[in-house]
Amino acid sequence: VSIRAVEWTEGKVRFLDQTKLPGEEVWRETDDHRVVAEAIRRLEIRGAPLIGIAAGMAVALAAQGRSAASAADTDTAIAAAIAHLQATRPTAVNLTYALDRIRERHAHARAAGRDVAREILEEALLIARDEEAASARIAAYGAELIPDGACVLTHCNTGSLAAGGEGTALGIIRAAHRAGRVRRVYATETRPLLQGARLTMWELLRAGIDAVLITDGTAATVMARGEVQAVLVGADRIAANGDTANKVGTHMLAVLAGRFGVPMIVAAPLSTVDAATPRGADIPIEERQPDEVTHIQGVRVAPAGARVFAPAFDVTPAELITAIVTDRGVSRHPHAEALAAMLRTPAPRPGGGR
Amino acid sequence: VSIRAVEWTEGKVRFLDQTKLPGEEVWRETDDHRVVAEAIRRLEIRGAPLIGIAAGMAVALAAQGRSAASAADTDTAIAAAIAHLQATRPTAVNLTYALDRIRERHAHARAAGRDVAREILEEALLIARDEEAASARIAAYGAELIPDGACVLTHCNTGSLAAGGEGTALGIIRAAHRAGRVRRVYATETRPLLQGARLTMWELLRAGIDAVLITDGTAATVMARGEVQAVLVGADRIAANGDTANKVGTHMLAVLAGRFGVPMIVAAPLSTVDAATPRGADIPIEERQPDEVTHIQGVRVAPAGARVFAPAFDVTPAELITAIVTDRGVSRHPHAEALAAMLRTPAPRPGGGR
Repeated sequence: VSIRAVEWTEGKVRFLDQTKLPGEEVWRETDDHRVVAEAIRRLEIRGAPLIGIAAGMAVALAAQGRSAASAADTDTAIAAAIAHLQATRPTAVNLTYALDRIRERHAHARAAGRDVAREILEEALLIARDEEAASARIAAYGAELIPDGACVLTHCNTGSLAAGGEGTALGIIRAAHRAGRVRRVYATETRPLLQGARLTMWELLRAGIDAVLITDGTAATVMARGEVQAVLVGADRIAANGDTANKVGTHMLAVLAGRFGVPMIVAAPLSTVDAATPRGADIPIEERQPDEVTHIQGVRVAPAGARVFAPAFDVTPAELITAIVTDRGVSRHPHAEALAAMLRTPAPRPGGGR
Repeated sequence: VSIRAVEWTEGKVRFLDQTKLPGEEVWRETDDHRVVAEAIRRLEIRGAPLIGIAAGMAVALAAQGRSAASAADTDTAIAAAIAHLQATRPTAVNLTYALDRIRERHAHARAAGRDVAREILEEALLIARDEEAASARIAAYGAELIPDGACVLTHCNTGSLAAGGEGTALGIIRAAHRAGRVRRVYATETRPLLQGARLTMWELLRAGIDAVLITDGTAATVMARGEVQAVLVGADRIAANGDTANKVGTHMLAVLAGRFGVPMIVAAPLSTVDAATPRGADIPIEERQPDEVTHIQGVRVAPAGARVFAPAFDVTPAELITAIVTDRGVSRHPHAEALAAMLRTPAPRPGGGR
């Protein structure tokens, strides 16, 4: 059973604090958009699509209960909330995508003299529903790419804890597993914040899927032994040419996949493709605090004074990516053309942003 | 200043408990060879050459103070100590190499009616001296391969904490740094046991070398940015064809080095080359306990019930290795021939085993 890691419930946002997993399942509730912003910054809420969902709902929190305020004051408060949320994390484009949808809906509602708070909430819930639908379509497209009896390798966490529904790469894995095609999943622990060990293993164990945890550097060993038939990862931003920013370590896996002849599959909603970013070199890469590497679970593991380089993401060149599975189909080489075609095609139904 | 992490001192073996670094510098002393064996098993003493040094001294502990015992009882006790030490860790051939030297010296001393305990100790100290001399020669050969102003990347720990003298790969880095050729060292943290974060960073900071700690999966990022001019690693066993067993993660670095056109340099005493092991596939690879991955510094990071695959080492194919720097020169492709030639050439001076 998949989990709704962020949801709207009676005027509040309820979310699972992912930093406490797998030790504790701590749920938090708030009616303050700044609490949601801080949760995104602290990775209590993480995963590119889920950040977008949470940000939309957070603006809805900022907009609600302002019947006594003037329209101008309300609009200023909403704009400030959007700016505050936009500043939490720089790499995932889903955050920008969701906030753009909210901003647009806000402007339309205001211009038409409609209830701004209600329409922003409606848009936020629509974003969440769209992401769930996108996950389901990604899973359906992607599962077709998994050979029968495959062992697959995945990195970081791309499941219900990272996206709407069952997730992106992990959603594909779950769908392929239901179809009887996945024999085993190798999950990299994903340093520094161990989303693979803490979150992906938690989701896979709950789903009853045969899962084996490895350190990031062990990926070469399992691939060299021929034990991996596909590598599946998510994405935080995909440039127009297909270069993909994702959790640091992904580039390494793509190089290994190339060396060992294993398909390298990226899974993400089309909203992750940023037409305004031509190439991977143009994607801003967030650097995290040194203590995420020098300390683990509060325990110091490197000597005091150690310098650290801690990018949260890396950029995998499009040439190393076999397929990019979106909710609108599968992109293959040359990705620039395939992605452009998807972006040009109108969304399959009204209401959704894709 | 380099450190003697294992030394003989007045009938005892004194060693630094490396599991306590960098938090505490705990030195232990023992006259019991089983304590040394346990320290090797628990990685309080680690690094292929250092394990050999410690094992030799441990047999000397078992042999000493037995003047009241019969020759047969003494020989049995020594053989038992050798067998006990041999069983501690399977991959590093230096352990076998050192124990073979001790066994041979023991047999010779007994046959000649000489003082067995004294001669075993002499051999153990000779092994330590030979390893220190080997490190110095490796450093001299290897430093020539480092371009001026280079940033280098290293994995695990190959310094004074792993070998005699200043170490193997780290010994080269220190020598090249003294010659003004090394601008910066990127040290991978080296999961699961974090020897890079805990030990290499500790040695580099002490040596005043500009060092930057990265997670293992960040290596692709720094190489893709052109910030690495050489990758330097040690070895736990080198097969006759040049395939090299080293800390897990090394194979990944070699694949990345190949992709980014960076020289991949392995450094090890010639005693690490095992002529009896034709290819890498013949090297036994130790698997460590799951809790080394599921727990970090005693804190659980993966859910209960998580399966783990935790090989301590991986095997890098010879074709991916640009140079193997030994104390007897530099092997280049084809490594099988170059290594065979080194092994055929008599040692440069009497007494040493290489």
